[in-house]
This record gives sequence, structure tokens and C-alpha cells, in this order.
Amino acid sequence: MIYTAQHQDTSCSARYGIVTTAHGTFETPAFMPVGTIGTVKTLTPQDLLDCNVQIMLSNTYHLYLRPGLEILQHFGGLHRLNGWRGPILTDSGGFQVYSLDELKKIDENGVTFKSHWDGSKHLFTPENVVDTQRAIGSDIMMVLDYLTGNPSEFSLADEAHQQTLRWAERAREQFLNTPPLYDYPQYQFGIVQGGVYDELRAASIEGLLKIGFDGYAIGGLAVGESADVRRKVTAFCTERLPKDYPRYLMGVGKPEDILDAIELGVDMFDCVIPSRNGRNGSVFTRDGRLNLRNNKHKQAKLPIEEGCGCFSCQHFSLGYIHHMLRVNEMLGMRLTTLHNIFFYQQLVREAREAIRENRFATHKREFLSRYFKETG
Amino acid sequence: MIYTAQHQDTSCSARYGIVTTAHGTFETPAFMPVGTIGTVKTLTPQDLLDCNVQIMLSNTYHLYLRPGLEILQHFGGLHRLNGWRGPILTDSGGFQVYSLDELKKIDENGVTFKSHWDGSKHLFTPENVVDTQRAIGSDIMMVLDYLTGNPSEFSLADEAHQQTLRWAERAREQFLNTPPLYDYPQYQFGIVQGGVYDELRAASIEGLLKIGFDGYAIGGLAVGESADVRRKVTAFCTERLPKDYPRYLMGVGKPEDILDAIELGVDMFDCVIPSRNGRNGSVFTRDGRLNLRNNKHKQAKLPIEEGCGCFSCQHFSLGYIHHMLRVNEMLGMRLTTLHNIFFYQQLVREAREAIRENRFATHKREFLSRYFKETG
Repeated sequence: MIYTAQHQDTSCSARYGIVTTAHGTFETPAFMPVGTIGTVKTLTPQDLLDCNVQIMLSNTYHLYLRPGLEILQHFGGLHRLNGWRGPILTDSGGFQVYSLDELKKIDENGVTFKSHWDGSKHLFTPENVVDTQRAIGSDIMMVLDYLTGNPSEFSLADEAHQQTLRWAERAREQFLNTPPLYDYPQYQFGIVQGGVYDELRAASIEGLLKIGFDGYAIGGLAVGESADVRRKVTAFCTERLPKDYPRYLMGVGKPEDILDAIELGVDMFDCVIPSRNGRNGSVFTRDGRLNLRNNKHKQAKLPIEEGCGCFSCQHFSLGYIHHMLRVNEMLGMRLTTLHNIFFYQQLVREAREAIRENRFATHKREFLSRYFKETG
Repeated sequence: MIYTAQHQDTSCSARYGIVTTAHGTFETPAFMPVGTIGTVKTLTPQDLLDCNVQIMLSNTYHLYLRPGLEILQHFGGLHRLNGWRGPILTDSGGFQVYSLDELKKIDENGVTFKSHWDGSKHLFTPENVVDTQRAIGSDIMMVLDYLTGNPSEFSLADEAHQQTLRWAERAREQFLNTPPLYDYPQYQFGIVQGGVYDELRAASIEGLLKIGFDGYAIGGLAVGESADVRRKVTAFCTERLPKDYPRYLMGVGKPEDILDAIELGVDMFDCVIPSRNGRNGSVFTRDGRLNLRNNKHKQAKLPIEEGCGCFSCQHFSLGYIHHMLRVNEMLGMRLTTLHNIFFYQQLVREAREAIRENRFATHKREFLSRYFKETG
């Protein structure tokens, strides 16, 4: 059991816990920045620590293509390669393959797809995705899943959920029958599918629990549904998932979505929003988002956010970052990424504090009220 | 007098000195990394300090176009804008305009050119280039000069040198008749032109000395001539420039060129090579250059250079940096830039040490013998 419940907020379903891995613990609710090809774009592992990151995510699909399994094994896994010494979670590649659109074929055996990089043909099966994540050496690996966008017809959602479940069984068997390649244990999470349909989600959870995993992810959300639908499906799942395992809502999201899901009892999150939006000049503050490329910031001598403890706000004016973004200096993107990753870690840290003090529901309301208030 | 001679090497013309500016001192021989539009690409001022940089250079032409003088004055100069608290030298824009090729027109008044950025038309005169550098607030400003590529006909080199000299007189007058815009003094260097012709170089130096500047630069080199010709012209100039003023060889260059010029008595250097080449994957080591994009580095677990004290070598393997460069992660470019800037600072630091111990000539020979030796 890798999850230790520490405190249940009395005002809602939010909970504070600790997950233990071979590369150390992380507190939940946790936000995992995305290091697609091993690197959270523009940042070093030292930067991640400075941003208070406790666990990072990386993408199996991308690492499998480049640098490839041979190099990953040669170095002794991703930690040794990229220099991040804390916990790493890897997805299964299911979402990337889903995003490939026309480049894929799904059958009982697995997913055949063409690399977005060089067009070469590849096959992901439930088994070889476990093997790949053995080679990566991630602390937490995800099973191969089959997801469909929202909304999807009941029949399609049903088919995808059942396929995911059959693959989950094969993936768990492969996991249990293969040793780690390096000198530490790894863990494996199952993924709940079933679209927006309660009976499918219920069946998916039941099936996964029967197999038994180290944690459970809610998949198939953040793919087109409204916030209300996402909230409803998330609540349905968290109510049914066991209390002594971590719950991970995949690919979510915006600060408001994360707070919503924390309130419903979700423990783990990942999303490219803070890093990708940062590179585009969009930054998060307690008073909402700012587009730093906007001309109105060119004279601003204050930092992105007054009082913020991130490296960017401690050292640079909004006006200078604006200038850097406008002239395409990479440093500008690095500074916005640093700020956003710091902001997201602050978001979950403050959530954890509020939970421990049984005031998460109030905290969320106050945070959102300020965040969405129009300010001059 | 901003230059204080500290030691003359007894084995050659190399010398160790200290230049004092309002933003602190720097030791010479000094290498100034180039922060084109205010930023040494991918690096923060804190990174520059970690690389032991003592003075940085920025480009008047680029800063004039973006962010523009209004923003520079609004912030109180470049130091306040970019956060670098040490000395800054700015060029005059002459070299950038020279590089524009077809986009310029030169007459007695100055240079008319079209912006490479948006095609808008601008005029640089000896006077307004001083004004611009007042707005930038650089510690050391350069006069507007007129340079021609090498080789150039005697008549063209003569014309350019004479134009440069007439402009130098106007620039000095403007400098002496205008106060700094901020609360610290600035200094101004003249630029020796005259192509590869001794009599023109001699006349240029004589004319500049008659006007009187705070330091003297050797311009019109690193624009097509051979290393031998550059050495000959440099030696001719350093022998004639006064001992109590700093001597700056503009735009040079490769490590071997810098060592050559130090031996001849040059004090200051700037070049985009360490940063630009770094971004292209080319890094400097004591054993020569490496192209990190080359496939042969993909399995390398050692750093770029064993024993190197730079951040990149302390934390990352050559193999991982290779991976990052191959997948176009910006972090890869940042790490190669960090290494190269550190290497260049080490180059001049070791030169200064050798000079103080009267062994620069030997030091140079040993350095180059290892640097150019083929190693497996």
C-alpha cells in the first residue's frame, strides 16, 4: 500500500495524504508537471525543486520514440538520464495515441500507430507498455487504456471501457510476472474509463478493483466535456474508489478544475497547461491570468505577481519578461514557465494546508472569488 | 582614467589590468558575452555570475529597435531593465548596420538603414548614437564607426577610416556636451579603423588619440581576414596604443584568436561564438570542440568535460544533453550555452593568472597544443 491517508477534511471530500515510492514521498493533493520527453520544457531538475515540485510526469510514448529503450536502459532509467531524483510517474502512451487521430489502429492485441516524428510504424500492447515503463524505471506506471472523446455514444464508451478492462488484466499480469530492471520497486495504476455513463464507470471500477492495482486513475476526462459533467463523473468515481489508494485525475487541468476535483477527493493531477501556456506568455496569478505578450505590460516595473516567491518574480519585472517574449528570447519562456509551475505547486500546497485545517471548501470559494474577479 | 595596469607579462606583450566603472570593476583580459537584445540568450544575470562573467555586452542597434528608447528610459536604463548589475558595454550599431548589406546608405551625416525587423527606416548619426547609449545607460559606449570587410581596396579602407575619424570627433563632442541620463558616469571608446594597411591604422590611432577617449578599440577585424593578417594588424595597433587605456579587439573570437590577441596586449573581447555555437550544439573543451548533436555522443554518461565546474557538467551527462538537442528541448541549448560561457571565462581567467606569473607565452602554447591535439 503506497498511500497513507493523513487527514480527511470535515467540510468536503478533500483529503490530505502521502504517497511513498522508491524515490521518496510526495504529499497529496499533488500536481505533477509534465516532462514530455524527459524534461519539463526549459527547466532543470534543480528548477523543479525550487518550484517545490515533489513528483514529475513523463510520457511513455515520447520516451519510447526518443531517446528509445536502448538508451534508457543503457543509462539505468529515466532518473539517471534526466537527473530528477524524486518520484516519476509515466503515462501509458494511450492518450498520445488517442491524440494521433488518423495515425492509429486499435484491436484486441493493442494499438498500431505511426510515429508523429518519422512516420515509422509501432505497436503498443498492454504487455509491452509495461516492459517500456520497466525500461524507463518510472516509480508509478499506468496501464494501456483506450479512451474516446466526450461526448461519445454509449456503445463506443462501453466498447472502450471493456477493452481497457481486458487490457488492464493483461497489463497487471505482465507487471506481476516481470521484475523491475533496476534496483527499486515500481507501482502500477489502473485507469477507469466509461465516458460520461455512470453504469460504465461503475463497471470499470468494479473490474479494476477485482484485478487490484496500487492506485486508480480516472481517465477519459478533460477530452471535451463541460466542467459540470467532469465534476459529476469525478464525484461518481471518487465515491466508489477505495479510500486507501491514491486517486489520479488524468490531464486536469486549469486551477479551478483542480480545486473542484480536490474537493471531490482526487489526490493527483497532471497537465501541460502551466508549462505550455507559460511558453505562450500566459501566466497565472491569484487575481487571474495575464497574457504577458499584451502591449499594455510593456512599461510594468512590478513582477508578474507582487509577493510571489518564484525566481522570476524575485528577479524580473513584468515589462522585461514582456520584452523578452516579444523578441522571442527563450529566457522569457523559461521565466514564465518557472512562475507557472511555482504557482501550481502553491495551489496544491495551499489546498493541503486548508484540508488539514478542515476549511478546504471555504478556501476554494475564496480562491476562486479572487481569481475570477475582474481587476482593473 | 578607468584602466589600472596591474602587471606586464615579461614573456610577451600580454598584460593584466583592472577597469573601473560605475557598476564595478572587471579584470582584463576580459571576455564579454553578447546579450544582443539585453539578454545573453537563454541565461539570466544570475547565470552569468555563476559563469564568472564580470562584464557583458549588448547591441545598441537591437536595443534601439526593441524595446526602444522610450522603454529603456522609462525603466532607468538597461541595468534596471535586464537585472544585470555589473558593467555593460554597448557597441555603436556600426557593425550591425555593416551586416545589413543592402539595407543601408552611408553619407557624411551618418547611416540610413532599414530595420531587419519591420523594414522601417532609421538614421544613425555620431550624435544620436551617443544619445541612444545615454538612454541605454551602458557603462562603456562605442562611437559610430564605418567598417568595410577584408580584404578592401586601400582607397575604400582609407575612406572608411577617415569617415570614422570625422564621426569620432563629432561623437566625442556630443559625449562631452551631454550629461548621463542616470545617476552614474559613462565612458566612451574610440574605434581604430584602416583595414589591413599600416599607414591607415597609424593615422587612425593618431587621430583618435588627438581627440582623446576613455579607451580604444581595434575595429574592422574578424571580417574576412586570415589569422596571420589579424595578428599583424593587431600587433601594429597595440604597439601604438597608449599603455594607460584599455584596448578592445571587437568581435574576436575563437579561443585561439583570443589567446593570440592577449599575447599582443589586447585587454577586452566580445564574440557571439560561445553562445551561438552553443545553441547549435557545438561546445568547447580543453581538448577541442565537440558537436553534441553527433550520434556518437548518445550513450555518453560523462559530462561535456570531466572536471569542469560549470552547472551543466556538474549535473548532466553529455548523452542527456545530446538527447535534448536532438528533440529540440530549449534546455539543451541553455546547458551548452552555460558551459561555453563558463569555458570562455575560464580561458581569460587562466590567461590572467599566467600573465601575473610571467608565463603567458608558455601557457598559450600548452593550451593550444592540447586544444588542437586529435583525441581518439
